[in-house]
Amino acid sequence: MPENTFEADGERVLADLNALRAIGAYKTGVHKPTFSEPHLRSLAWLTERLAEAGLTGSIDGIGNVIGTSARAGPKLLAGSHLESQNHAGWLDGPLGVVYALEAARVINSDPSVHGAVEVAAWCDEEGHFGHFLGSRSYVGLVSEAEIDAARDRTSGRTMREALREAGLAGRARVTAEPGRHVGYLEAHIEQGEALESGGLAIGVVTSIVGIWQYRIDFTGEQNHAGTTRMAIRKDAGLALARFCVAIDDRFPRACGPRTVWTTGRITLDPGAPSIIPGRAEMLFQIRDDDPAVIDRLETLLRTMAAEASAAGPCGVAVERIRIGHPATMDPAFQDAIEAAGKSLADGRSIRMPSGAGHDAQVLATIMPAGMLFVPSIGGVSHHWTENTEDADIVRGARVFVEACRRLLRERDGRPRAAPAP
Amino acid sequence: MPENTFEADGERVLADLNALRAIGAYKTGVHKPTFSEPHLRSLAWLTERLAEAGLTGSIDGIGNVIGTSARAGPKLLAGSHLESQNHAGWLDGPLGVVYALEAARVINSDPSVHGAVEVAAWCDEEGHFGHFLGSRSYVGLVSEAEIDAARDRTSGRTMREALREAGLAGRARVTAEPGRHVGYLEAHIEQGEALESGGLAIGVVTSIVGIWQYRIDFTGEQNHAGTTRMAIRKDAGLALARFCVAIDDRFPRACGPRTVWTTGRITLDPGAPSIIPGRAEMLFQIRDDDPAVIDRLETLLRTMAAEASAAGPCGVAVERIRIGHPATMDPAFQDAIEAAGKSLADGRSIRMPSGAGHDAQVLATIMPAGMLFVPSIGGVSHHWTENTEDADIVRGARVFVEACRRLLRERDGRPRAAPAP
Repeated sequence: MPENTFEADGERVLADLNALRAIGAYKTGVHKPTFSEPHLRSLAWLTERLAEAGLTGSIDGIGNVIGTSARAGPKLLAGSHLESQNHAGWLDGPLGVVYALEAARVINSDPSVHGAVEVAAWCDEEGHFGHFLGSRSYVGLVSEAEIDAARDRTSGRTMREALREAGLAGRARVTAEPGRHVGYLEAHIEQGEALESGGLAIGVVTSIVGIWQYRIDFTGEQNHAGTTRMAIRKDAGLALARFCVAIDDRFPRACGPRTVWTTGRITLDPGAPSIIPGRAEMLFQIRDDDPAVIDRLETLLRTMAAEASAAGPCGVAVERIRIGHPATMDPAFQDAIEAAGKSLADGRSIRMPSGAGHDAQVLATIMPAGMLFVPSIGGVSHHWTENTEDADIVRGARVFVEACRRLLRERDGRPRAAPAP
Repeated sequence: MPENTFEADGERVLADLNALRAIGAYKTGVHKPTFSEPHLRSLAWLTERLAEAGLTGSIDGIGNVIGTSARAGPKLLAGSHLESQNHAGWLDGPLGVVYALEAARVINSDPSVHGAVEVAAWCDEEGHFGHFLGSRSYVGLVSEAEIDAARDRTSGRTMREALREAGLAGRARVTAEPGRHVGYLEAHIEQGEALESGGLAIGVVTSIVGIWQYRIDFTGEQNHAGTTRMAIRKDAGLALARFCVAIDDRFPRACGPRTVWTTGRITLDPGAPSIIPGRAEMLFQIRDDDPAVIDRLETLLRTMAAEASAAGPCGVAVERIRIGHPATMDPAFQDAIEAAGKSLADGRSIRMPSGAGHDAQVLATIMPAGMLFVPSIGGVSHHWTENTEDADIVRGARVFVEACRRLLRERDGRPRAAPAP
């Protein structure tokens, strides 16, 4: 039992997280792609816990779970996601959902608080079928046509089929009720090593970086790997390799202090050992919280492609396939997290941008939003070895609940009541 | 009708090739992977033509078709293959089979020749399930265990399943009868541009290059593409790109005049746009007709891998996965083709190595072997636009048939008869 009845119960938080880890376990992590059986079972698990916590919620027509409270007063929305990347970690997503659930349990029964925490699990934050489909649906940015076109990037299964098989086809999609929430708070593992290497416990997120994503195509000439002399080859794969190396050489001179860029996928066509690839493709992304830096790098990228095409022997074409603008976290939310960290984490917090995308950036388009990070061991993420010390998980939960309380109290318009004994 | 009854019939050769092109047509080429329906139909087509030509043959337990003759005297084996690469050309394989069929029709009824041409279509020269499985089975180099383990590289279907579905499971595999053949002759398109650019009609193959194939593995650290600073990344994909570029920079200083090397496939693991690849793999091959050159290049490759591993941040491991030793073509076969080219192609022939692998290199391990090339338009190969001028196809067929006649006459041990009128 926690010392204070209206504080997060660390053991309950750990038990909940381990219960979710047991659903779709893979080594020490989980494998819960969107709309997989373990993902759906995790959503069902959550709706049961919401009911126990006095919230009303079910799975909506896009796979979101939103638990609402009948309690009077301001409402704070809190949550994250329950699906995982393929064969990935147990905390990426569930941590924020369980913190939100715990906050609802504690705060909504705290007589010193006027108002309630409501809980969300956004579907497909990990982008198996699209990007931020669940939270974007909630803020009204997903059309039926987008759902018609969405397919699982691994299996190719359509989203319509997945919804049908999950029994969700035809259900309404819940969208935000204007003015209902004072804002949105999300907790997440850092997924980097800044907190751990600084001996810190809490990250106060200032902004979520923008992600610009590109498909870069190389066109050469497909030919026989044995009979075509080196001098006359137009090897699209080699052109791609040279381009990757050129990016790595030239981007550092043009980037900002926190810019990152990644080639995550390479495909040679036809991809056979005895055929010189006639086409090659790379998926490339740039992240920064300063749009001016990204603009500068995109210009450089296009210049480099033009130079490479002019030099030959292969053509290089850059196509931007996704823009995610940077999102600023609400200053009052940052202050509330920092203040909670002062009292419950010895002030071992730091203000920092998020290099990863999160549903909070989508919610930030319609309400004030904030994010709290806890440390990741070794900075490992998107891998089944991803982990966080139990003590950091428990400490993070306490800070999160306290931040929720502070945010609701600031907005209830009533004089502060003393905490119950 | 040809001028001489015992000469190749150019129209019949073109009609046969077009009949085979119509089976599994794809654009102006074909799509006939090994054991696909169009491949099996092409084999059935051949067995019917063999019967019409007085040969006895059926599809054996590995998908080879061998047509044998009851005619007395020495036997010359001739052939090539009928399956294709995916979405590839119409002549790569069928040309040599149709030339062999035409040679059997002409020679086996030529009273001036003592002996016969026998016809082979070797299964899976294109390596959908392995490498040279058909010809290697015929010379006794394929075990049942190798067949058990073989899978289609595209679909993953096992060879056992493919054989079962084709109705070939349980059939015996035909192997070479020692001493039966005076040798093996194969015709093929050049798949390069040496003949075309030299205004030549016939390539007399001197040797078939060796192919050394490698899997090169890069081990870094899988991590989140947004939260991991550039300075601490261990990006296996970037290490691979740098290695490809280093090969292209350093190999030219160590290679021979005809060496070629190719990276045909690249795989990043996990291959997602928002994940720094923790592992990467490339399939790499080196071809040369001088084993000493290949040895030197392999040593360089291993040195480069050790240097890259030592420099970090990723480990590089080179594994040799296939050796194909160079094969020398029999001098008497080279002379016979050259002499035939003198009388039927105005001497427009050249002696040259084959940069591509062919079944002839497998047959050369048990009998004298030779190869004849015809020009490829633009040197294009392993692509559906692959083509050869009709006039070159017809000229090649005449030279091929004449070369067969010369080889049988040289070996019949009887005085030469005058050609029939």
